[in-house]
Amino acid sequence: AIDAARFLGRLAALAEIGRDDKGRLTRLAASEADRAGRDVVAGWMREAGLDVRVDRIGNLIGLWDPAGTGSRPVMMGSHLDTVIDAGAYDGCTGVLAGLAVIEALRHAGRIPPRPLALAAFTNEEGVRYAPDMLGSLVYAGGLPVEAALATVGIDGTVLGEELARIGYAGPEAPGFLHPHSYVELHVEQGPVLERDGIAVGAVEDLQGISWQEVTIEGAANHAGTTPMSLRRDAGVAAALLVAWLRERARAGNGRSVATVGRLRLEPDAINVIPARAVLTVDLRDPDAGRLADFEADLAERLDALAREEDVTVTVRRLARFAPVTFDAGIVRAIEAAARARGLSVRRMTSGAGHDAQMMARLCPAAMIFVPSVGGISHNPAERTEEADLVAGAEVLRDVVMGLSGV
Amino acid sequence: AIDAARFLGRLAALAEIGRDDKGRLTRLAASEADRAGRDVVAGWMREAGLDVRVDRIGNLIGLWDPAGTGSRPVMMGSHLDTVIDAGAYDGCTGVLAGLAVIEALRHAGRIPPRPLALAAFTNEEGVRYAPDMLGSLVYAGGLPVEAALATVGIDGTVLGEELARIGYAGPEAPGFLHPHSYVELHVEQGPVLERDGIAVGAVEDLQGISWQEVTIEGAANHAGTTPMSLRRDAGVAAALLVAWLRERARAGNGRSVATVGRLRLEPDAINVIPARAVLTVDLRDPDAGRLADFEADLAERLDALAREEDVTVTVRRLARFAPVTFDAGIVRAIEAAARARGLSVRRMTSGAGHDAQMMARLCPAAMIFVPSVGGISHNPAERTEEADLVAGAEVLRDVVMGLSGV
Ligand SMILES: NC(=O)NCCC(=O)O
Ligand SMILES: NC(=O)NCCC(=O)O
Repeated sequence: AIDAARFLGRLAALAEIGRDDKGRLTRLAASEADRAGRDVVAGWMREAGLDVRVDRIGNLIGLWDPAGTGSRPVMMGSHLDTVIDAGAYDGCTGVLAGLAVIEALRHAGRIPPRPLALAAFTNEEGVRYAPDMLGSLVYAGGLPVEAALATVGIDGTVLGEELARIGYAGPEAPGFLHPHSYVELHVEQGPVLERDGIAVGAVEDLQGISWQEVTIEGAANHAGTTPMSLRRDAGVAAALLVAWLRERARAGNGRSVATVGRLRLEPDAINVIPARAVLTVDLRDPDAGRLADFEADLAERLDALAREEDVTVTVRRLARFAPVTFDAGIVRAIEAAARARGLSVRRMTSGAGHDAQMMARLCPAAMIFVPSVGGISHNPAERTEEADLVAGAEVLRDVVMGLSGV
Repeated sequence: AIDAARFLGRLAALAEIGRDDKGRLTRLAASEADRAGRDVVAGWMREAGLDVRVDRIGNLIGLWDPAGTGSRPVMMGSHLDTVIDAGAYDGCTGVLAGLAVIEALRHAGRIPPRPLALAAFTNEEGVRYAPDMLGSLVYAGGLPVEAALATVGIDGTVLGEELARIGYAGPEAPGFLHPHSYVELHVEQGPVLERDGIAVGAVEDLQGISWQEVTIEGAANHAGTTPMSLRRDAGVAAALLVAWLRERARAGNGRSVATVGRLRLEPDAINVIPARAVLTVDLRDPDAGRLADFEADLAERLDALAREEDVTVTVRRLARFAPVTFDAGIVRAIEAAARARGLSVRRMTSGAGHDAQMMARLCPAAMIFVPSVGGISHNPAERTEEADLVAGAEVLRDVVMGLSGV
């Protein structure tokens, strides 16, 4: 069985790495805090007998091949990076549960016919460097490693330089270990499982993600002397866009979501009409057509805004991922494993992006969700009940045992 | 006559002090750049034979009392601090024109029966420390100097500490020199004079100013997993407020203006619903009643927003100045001086706040405006034609000669 105390203790320990002086947990990709988290987890992986490697994009991958087969491993994994002022569960749950699965099998003396592997992918959150899931995207061949290493972050840093700085610019070619299959345990981060009183989600698909950065240029002028009719206010144009995005998202069938998480005004002075606004637009929809329609409407809205507000608008694409359908066989295996343990289970769509969606390009993949209390994530109040975490890890073990032929 | 070449040359020289590596002129109050600008102007004042003093709030005041009368001086002045990415004329014009007036009289051997004084007031812009016109407000007794020195800026600095750091925490009690009258030349910073082809504005009043900082607290959550209906998005609430302010300002008789110059989201991450938004609201109206109505409507709107968006809203007052009526006698003197020089002149309202509005609490005061090209200010493109600048300085000299009994 899973060593629940060790698994939960490690989760708690990792949540202390990267706390700032205000008590906020922020372990952005390739930061000093990320280095510290990676060092600790790499140490635990080695203690568990894994052969630990780092690839050029910083993915940390441990292999357990006790039979020395050299064949394609069943891979588990997730990520160790966090958003700003984060919770403790997003990402770390999947990595540490995978480690607990390997330790459980090892402790029980089980030798899997297929090797097992455990991955902690670089920059899953996409907060410091866009796109999100960057490490697994590179691993799956969806983005050349050189391009990924040259990515410039929100703080002006270059990902490749930051990885080198923290000692995680490894020698392996991304994709060096081709998995037989990939299974990721993650907290749901949404309200569905808790609302319906379900213990386990068998994630059968994952919605499309569209990230854009919009820059609006108006003209600075004096807040006191400039009549409303003569203004070219980039901040007002940005505000109208934020309001429109909310209405457009609400207007559909309730499945589209739109978020402006970042917004910066320049010169950002109390009595100066904003000359420039830079904001991010995050659109998602489980349906590829609806997502494309939303993007087209947004493009039209931006054109109209430029005319109506006498501003110029430019758009930079930060991420674009089509909806992903996971492997039906693994989804069924998750359902069966949950049921065999007497856990309620339902098929569901993932609202968040995950490394599994990139690994699905390489091999059969699927995900196991456990409930998020209050549906809260990307928030320090993020929480999953201990029993749910352990149940999720046990379902992961059962599914992985099946895939590896134990 | 005014030495136009020296006056304009000094304006140009001062505009080079505080340029950053991007070529942007930013000389925020009590910054290193402000120190450098003050040092240069204080030097010019001493060269012109002024007795230069600094008061406890950093106001730089030069006295020219060639007759040794010790009586109340006619004061000219304005400010040397700028907004972010500023123009060259806002404030410096009035200080350097005042200096040119004294130099012209001195050069001509005129001994004014009443002394002349020249002031460069601290933190007129209000960009780094609120309220605006802080130095002249303290000078006029409208704010205790201890409270003013304790003001915390947008960068977390304390004004008193910054003044001490740059060497401009002087020994004089603010108000130590009680003026007989105060006249300020300033660029209009608005479109009126240029539009109407008028050379000189005789400013008879100045509109009311209301500055508030609004903090909106919602809840961070995941941008992908959180349905629109379950969000408490502080950024959306802020955007709705910005849009409402614009509509409310437009809805009136065209005299109210409303500006959101600053807006910050937290945690400011692309896939995190904003937990908090902090924004500034600058409302102005020449009519005290209309300004109060706008503020009341805003307070109501904030209450409604808190309910509708399930956020909490708190408001911090940053500045509140009632409309000011200037001295009718000085306004008439400005009109007469302009006409005597063959310059077109009209009475007008100031849209911007100015040190003269604070000095009007102490003594008869008024202002002379000269046209701003394109009505542009608080923008690096701010400009006033050289002939207009010189004409303004000459009108200032004529008015001051009259007031000082030359
Ligand atoms: N799971 C998760 O929070 N991923 C971050 C990428 C995103 O969905 O925005
Ligand atoms: N003249 C001027 O720009 N003053 C700054 C204070 C304000 O009006 O916002």
